[in-house]
Amino acid sequence: MEILGNLNVIGYGLAAIGPGIGVGIVFGLGNQAIARQPELRGPLQLNIYLGMALVEALAILGFVLAFALPYTSS
Amino acid sequence: MEILGNLNVIGYGLAAIGPGIGVGIVFGLGNQAIARQPELRGPLQLNIYLGMALVEALAILGFVLAFALPYTSS
Amino acid sequence: MEILGNLNVIGYGLAAIGPGIGVGIVFGLGNQAIARQPELRGPLQLNIYLGMALVEALAILGFVLAFALPYTSS
Repeated sequence: MEILGNLNVIGYGLAAIGPGIGVGIVFGLGNQAIARQPELRGPLQLNIYLGMALVEALAILGFVLAFALPYTSS
Repeated sequence: MEILGNLNVIGYGLAAIGPGIGVGIVFGLGNQAIARQPELRGPLQLNIYLGMALVEALAILGFVLAFALPYTSS
Repeated sequence: MEILGNLNVIGYGLAAIGPGIGVGIVFGLGNQAIARQPELRGPLQLNIYLGMALVEALAILGFVLAFALPYTSS
């Protein structure tokens, strides 16, 4: 078999697709909200951080899992 | 089997899909927010950099993982 | 088995999906921002270049990785 590699990397790669788009949406639309209502910058900023952390966590879970699950049966 | 290759490259490739779109959204919508509220350029710019860094990190994690996880059982 | 090929090429192909869309978003929305606030053309243009470079880099990393990671166990 000439295919090398570790499926765990594919697993992480898949886990990063959604959060990559999602965190981008959080910041992109969040900045637009701040520009629309500048006096609400404080609470909006907080919401951006909260949303970012929750979405980013999904990818980090995939990163942890890639190391946590065994990849050899030996 | 005549298929060669390393699955870790596929893993990174998947990990780059989301951040590729996400960083684009952060900059695209961020620029629009700056255009709407030019006097907020400073904090918005900062938010753009922060969002970019957090999203880009997800792809870099995939890049690191592609080297970190073993791809041969030998 | 008559299927030939190298999985690393698939890996790069996947890595090009996101940045392909992302750079498009950066330029598309960036140009709209310039059209909305023409007097900010300088800094917005700079932001477009910066965002483009950061997104494009993700695809280039996949290109590098396709050569860097071994695809034969010999």
